[in-house]
Amino acid sequence: MRVLGVDPGLTRCGVGVVEGVAGRPLTMLGVGVVRTPADADLSHRLLAVEQGLERWLDEYRPECVAVERVFSQHNVRTVMGTAQASAVAMLCAARRGIPVALHTPSEVKAAVTGSGRADKAQVGAMVTRLLRLDAPPKPADAADALALAICHIWRAPAQNRLQRAVALHAAAAPTTTKGRTS
Amino acid sequence: MRVLGVDPGLTRCGVGVVEGVAGRPLTMLGVGVVRTPADADLSHRLLAVEQGLERWLDEYRPECVAVERVFSQHNVRTVMGTAQASAVAMLCAARRGIPVALHTPSEVKAAVTGSGRADKAQVGAMVTRLLRLDAPPKPADAADALALAICHIWRAPAQNRLQRAVALHAAAAPTTTKGRTS
Repeated sequence: MRVLGVDPGLTRCGVGVVEGVAGRPLTMLGVGVVRTPADADLSHRLLAVEQGLERWLDEYRPECVAVERVFSQHNVRTVMGTAQASAVAMLCAARRGIPVALHTPSEVKAAVTGSGRADKAQVGAMVTRLLRLDAPPKPADAADALALAICHIWRAPAQNRLQRAVALHAAAAPTTTKGRTS
Repeated sequence: MRVLGVDPGLTRCGVGVVEGVAGRPLTMLGVGVVRTPADADLSHRLLAVEQGLERWLDEYRPECVAVERVFSQHNVRTVMGTAQASAVAMLCAARRGIPVALHTPSEVKAAVTGSGRADKAQVGAMVTRLLRLDAPPKPADAADALALAICHIWRAPAQNRLQRAVALHAAAAPTTTKGRTS
């Protein structure tokens, strides 16, 4: 199972690709950040996020996209941008027929550190260990994207098996595919 | 100037196309609603909004898309969906190189009724009068989309002239165009 984790944001949208199955060592295939200029028009920032994510989807062809579920508890202005960037990520996946999973920040922290209240350093340290990296990925958004992907691989093995079966069935009957091929 | 107004929403996304210039009678070219099923997966709802809006953009080829600016003052769950639907609208426009304008609900109400606190019935009545319709467009989301388009035509004549000049310049130098041609 290959998962693209997306930590949505307009200024920095973290992306990380992890491959593996629950109970086995995981492999990081790629990690990075899609950035958009803070002084650009909102519609152009969303377009830049789309173009960036499309490149990641083209290059890594994930079977699932795991996106952080956005809540409105923080700074209102930031949250709206985060919600909008997450919409772009979900849309890019849905257009290709890739299943989307949403995980809350505390689900992700609990999955990789054992505590839903872990801080960024702890998450970064566990991501580094679990993926056998030399150093924690930076910025934190990139590490968070990897943690999302790991969380998804670990949380939903039964769900993943179902999704693989559905994907195989869809591949066998391509007329039902709705995604664009662009 | 032809404007597509979008009152963003996941359950009902209002759309209305108005043509005209400030100081002259306006013409409604089309009005409607893009609906998505409340029980569908969020990523598929966003995809359905995108597909619906793409059809409107294909059919009417607006020069500008006016979208309601979303605030976080209301129900948190609803607002997140509204913000995400508005992101899809902005993205669809930006991808085609169409300028996007955001107007707040009170700017729109003030533009068409003279009061930023007008109720839905008052907005519907003025939209009906200004566009010389037989009856107020329903549902209210459709009327709101028309009000947004009218507001945009009236509020920014100078800005519109500038945008037309920029569009003409871009058309004359197509190598700078970033939009997809899908």
